[in-house]
Amino acid sequence: MALPPIRTVGVIGTGVIGASWTALFLARGLKVIVTDPAPGADSKLRDYLLKNWSTTPNAKVTQADYLNNFKFVKEIDPHLGDLDLIQENGPERLDFKRRLFAHLDANTPEHVVIASSSSGLPSSDFITECKRNPSRILIGHPFNPPHLVPLVEVVPHQGTGDAYVTAALQFYRSLGKDPVLVKKETPGFIANRLQAAVCAEAYSLISRGVISAEDLDKTVTSGLGPRWALTGPIMTNTLGGGGNFNHFMDHLGPALKTWLDDMHRHEFDMGSQDVDVVKERVDEWISHVNLKEIEENRDKLLVGLIKSKSEGSL
Amino acid sequence: MALPPIRTVGVIGTGVIGASWTALFLARGLKVIVTDPAPGADSKLRDYLLKNWSTTPNAKVTQADYLNNFKFVKEIDPHLGDLDLIQENGPERLDFKRRLFAHLDANTPEHVVIASSSSGLPSSDFITECKRNPSRILIGHPFNPPHLVPLVEVVPHQGTGDAYVTAALQFYRSLGKDPVLVKKETPGFIANRLQAAVCAEAYSLISRGVISAEDLDKTVTSGLGPRWALTGPIMTNTLGGGGNFNHFMDHLGPALKTWLDDMHRHEFDMGSQDVDVVKERVDEWISHVNLKEIEENRDKLLVGLIKSKSEGSL
Repeated sequence: MALPPIRTVGVIGTGVIGASWTALFLARGLKVIVTDPAPGADSKLRDYLLKNWSTTPNAKVTQADYLNNFKFVKEIDPHLGDLDLIQENGPERLDFKRRLFAHLDANTPEHVVIASSSSGLPSSDFITECKRNPSRILIGHPFNPPHLVPLVEVVPHQGTGDAYVTAALQFYRSLGKDPVLVKKETPGFIANRLQAAVCAEAYSLISRGVISAEDLDKTVTSGLGPRWALTGPIMTNTLGGGGNFNHFMDHLGPALKTWLDDMHRHEFDMGSQDVDVVKERVDEWISHVNLKEIEENRDKLLVGLIKSKSEGSL
Repeated sequence: MALPPIRTVGVIGTGVIGASWTALFLARGLKVIVTDPAPGADSKLRDYLLKNWSTTPNAKVTQADYLNNFKFVKEIDPHLGDLDLIQENGPERLDFKRRLFAHLDANTPEHVVIASSSSGLPSSDFITECKRNPSRILIGHPFNPPHLVPLVEVVPHQGTGDAYVTAALQFYRSLGKDPVLVKKETPGFIANRLQAAVCAEAYSLISRGVISAEDLDKTVTSGLGPRWALTGPIMTNTLGGGGNFNHFMDHLGPALKTWLDDMHRHEFDMGSQDVDVVKERVDEWISHVNLKEIEENRDKLLVGLIKSKSEGSL
């Protein structure tokens, strides 16, 4: 089944994620019909788009078109027939999403992919009242901000059709993004789990006084992070094994096991008072830094890093 | 106790790590006396230095001085009196390191810091035969390659003197590196533990068929990695909590706990046959990629990334 090309996207919800998606879609030359019930959402979105024009990479249109090709509507219903794909960014509340998806499914042409930016709820939880074609519903979970960070986790539910999965992957790729396919619904999907793994060990090391919060972060930003920006854990293992993952596992697996066993013995308990110890030690550090400057620097460098990566073809 | 300035460094062992340290020390204008018993080590080191001149950032000397300021010696003993610091990069074998450190300790002036690049053995394991001044011995564990990646894990043993810890931290900082202080000897120190946390969850997800090896890596290189290159896990949490780590923990801690609980239920067993499943799935991917090209790209981009980070003052 070949789906029609995607020219007009519906964006539902214009919080941080929805606004950033809108910037990306517009910069890539798509038409966007966008809605959000919040008071002032229209002008807030316009401000966001103006501010982020310069950071959205690889624009295919002029700034004028970027700002003209969207229509903010109070009600999306009369426009559902004009859409080729919907990107939903509503609140992460099950009852809300259930009602919204039942409504969208009932009123949107059957072939139109409906993607949810949900970062936590799997779609099988909220398609339960969809009567028409829930097989075109899936998760397209971006990494914040979507107009900048290439990752999108595409997570079908058990009943999502292959054609819709393929269409979603192709769509995100056509925007210059790097979608990954999460083949089984899994709490936290992939990125949040990997992040949780690092955080749990970080909290353990900080609460046990092995390292300060500041130095913990430095271990990542000055060591692991720059490498992970370029090669993932598996490729890093493989290159560490002289181009051979088996060799890495046979040679360094035993050391890895020793560390994991020790980490297991000191596993951080998210329900314990150690949480307060971590909070206190983090506060000691954070009270001495200029957060605004750090955030601005990060945003600026992130643009540069992603640009030089895409030019370096990694 | 103020230690004399460090002008001449002894490098013991010129494998990948020792050669890269030598490049860094020379580029920063230090004199280096270097030894390695392997046949041809002298000319191999010279080739390495020539090849890596252009990638060593912030050189303070001319290329001619960089290449002239080291002396390769067959025996280090007659030179131990001329050194201000020793960076040891011998094999990771306990019996070897015990003998070597006993010898170095007995024959090097008492105030000279002796740092080991050991990535696994804590120094308390190999200072056992040091009779003279084991309090100047500590770990200075770099991240490969040391001339490029800023991280150094400084790990004192229980008897290491504060003055020597301070001297080592100052020395590495003076080279433009980002040392972190590991306050308690811990298996794997910090970076290897955080890396192990990510790898264990990655292996679990791949072996359970949740995601392909290629897409797992993409989740990191296109999402988590670029951010971690700029802000570490704690700062990322803090910014995610609107500048407030407590708020992050209170608001997102419960979700984190849900993911960690699920990860715990699916914890990867490094001693199980699942290791073979991971190997097989990684091989499927790796057999289709050009490893040489990936490695060259990574090295080139790593230089650029670290340079733009240092200029961006993060």
